[in-house]
Amino acid sequence: MKILAGPNSEKIAQKIAEQLNLNQLGLSYKLFSDGESYLQIEGNPDKEDIIIVQTTFPNQEKSLLELLLLSKTLKELGADKIIAIIPYLCYARADRKRVDGEVVSHSITMDLLSTAGIDSLVTVNVHNSEVFHNTAKDLEKYNLSILPAIIDYFKDKITEDWVIVGPDKGSKEDIALFAKELSLPSFVLEKYRDPIDHDVRFKDTEYECQSKSIILLDDVITSGGTALKAIKLLLEKNPSNIQFVVVHALAENKVFNEMREMGVKDIISVNTIPRDDIEQIDISLLISKFIEEKFL
Amino acid sequence: MKILAGPNSEKIAQKIAEQLNLNQLGLSYKLFSDGESYLQIEGNPDKEDIIIVQTTFPNQEKSLLELLLLSKTLKELGADKIIAIIPYLCYARADRKRVDGEVVSHSITMDLLSTAGIDSLVTVNVHNSEVFHNTAKDLEKYNLSILPAIIDYFKDKITEDWVIVGPDKGSKEDIALFAKELSLPSFVLEKYRDPIDHDVRFKDTEYECQSKSIILLDDVITSGGTALKAIKLLLEKNPSNIQFVVVHALAENKVFNEMREMGVKDIISVNTIPRDDIEQIDISLLISKFIEEKFL
Repeated sequence: MKILAGPNSEKIAQKIAEQLNLNQLGLSYKLFSDGESYLQIEGNPDKEDIIIVQTTFPNQEKSLLELLLLSKTLKELGADKIIAIIPYLCYARADRKRVDGEVVSHSITMDLLSTAGIDSLVTVNVHNSEVFHNTAKDLEKYNLSILPAIIDYFKDKITEDWVIVGPDKGSKEDIALFAKELSLPSFVLEKYRDPIDHDVRFKDTEYECQSKSIILLDDVITSGGTALKAIKLLLEKNPSNIQFVVVHALAENKVFNEMREMGVKDIISVNTIPRDDIEQIDISLLISKFIEEKFL
Repeated sequence: MKILAGPNSEKIAQKIAEQLNLNQLGLSYKLFSDGESYLQIEGNPDKEDIIIVQTTFPNQEKSLLELLLLSKTLKELGADKIIAIIPYLCYARADRKRVDGEVVSHSITMDLLSTAGIDSLVTVNVHNSEVFHNTAKDLEKYNLSILPAIIDYFKDKITEDWVIVGPDKGSKEDIALFAKELSLPSFVLEKYRDPIDHDVRFKDTEYECQSKSIILLDDVITSGGTALKAIKLLLEKNPSNIQFVVVHALAENKVFNEMREMGVKDIISVNTIPRDDIEQIDISLLISKFIEEKFL
């Protein structure tokens, strides 16, 4: 088994290769002057199982196409099984048809990955796990939860006045588990869509946060609008501080600056999307352990 | 038969629909705050042959993915035959394996188009016509030459002192035909790669251009480096002026500004890539005529 780092995931691929003690294939990569990617795989993938690591943010479509091109080429070069590690899986938001004629991008991109020769796909905190498992029947699919890595990250840092908060009902199970593992209290906020202006708002909460240290844990942040509203509501409860923890940090830098200006103490994301402007929790060990158990 | 305009080709699709007197399907299109495309097809494609028009520059990977998503969704919605008009076909440059392990993006993207449900593909001045026709066996492929539209554009404008120039041997046939149709003299330049610095240069040419009006016709321009060198060489021949004509204008605006500063009189491209900074030759009629002959 060998590892190939996609252009978007060199660092995490390097870590996984070291943790699993696997050799890496090389990749010669450049952009042509019109922006197209040039890719050349170095080393021999013939009769080998190959792990490709390529997250699909930023530049979702480019990252995705590079992954398809690499996978198909590896198969042409004689690779045996291809395991794609996609720490953040893009185009998963449109997961079902809500109105007639809507493009359900999630299932189509999964089909494309399968037709490009990928045999197994490992991702982290996918947008909709149930739909994910029902797509692309020929593809072996695994959705890892980041929660163990987040719990690990926090377990030596907590003090007694901490409280774990989730931004909506959808986060209820994760929040309960997170709080239980750290023996801390928790609650989730209630989100609703205003019937008149269709804006997302939060109901006030009865939970007491006075002088508490809040960890607000969210799955994903894009425009940041909803997260900023949740933070605003929580700040009105006079906590001693707020730490914002998000799995997939898709938002622009300025969103996090705004959080800092509001008084958020720490902003932490997971390196499913590599960033150097905020603290990151490393998922490589979680992925390596899974690969070891499942494929080695 | 109905037409669907992809997000990158609304104007040209509109023209083709009018010329062929076909109804258009609607497309609801937006970008999510993380940059992903949302697509919803309006109208009924069931049991219809559908023409999708989507050029693949700028944003090659995004345009390509949108095309794949639309095509697959149209098939799911019951569309019969899908004819994709891709005025500029991206990722066609890597057309064969030059070194071991090289990703041959052209054949892979063609396979992706085929697996996404496209039955016929119509493009214009593809990078390598021979390879193009040998890709994706299940896909009906048509490569139109833009030359008739360029000849049409110039035929009422010429005066006797014009000369047609091609930038390299590859353009020889097109240049000869172009010149013959307009009853004008022509020649092609000789390009070579410097054996030491690997830079592209032009050999001096014996052809006389003194006080001539030159039309320099190129297939594609990206960084512009080669075209600017050809123009520099031709300017040394003291022509009365130079018009630069290019089919696929991928270059940045600043390249054309540099040409203007050098003294190039007119810069003209084809709307295979829509631009508003340079004069454009419209290919919609050429495409419409082809569709009419072949599919109606």
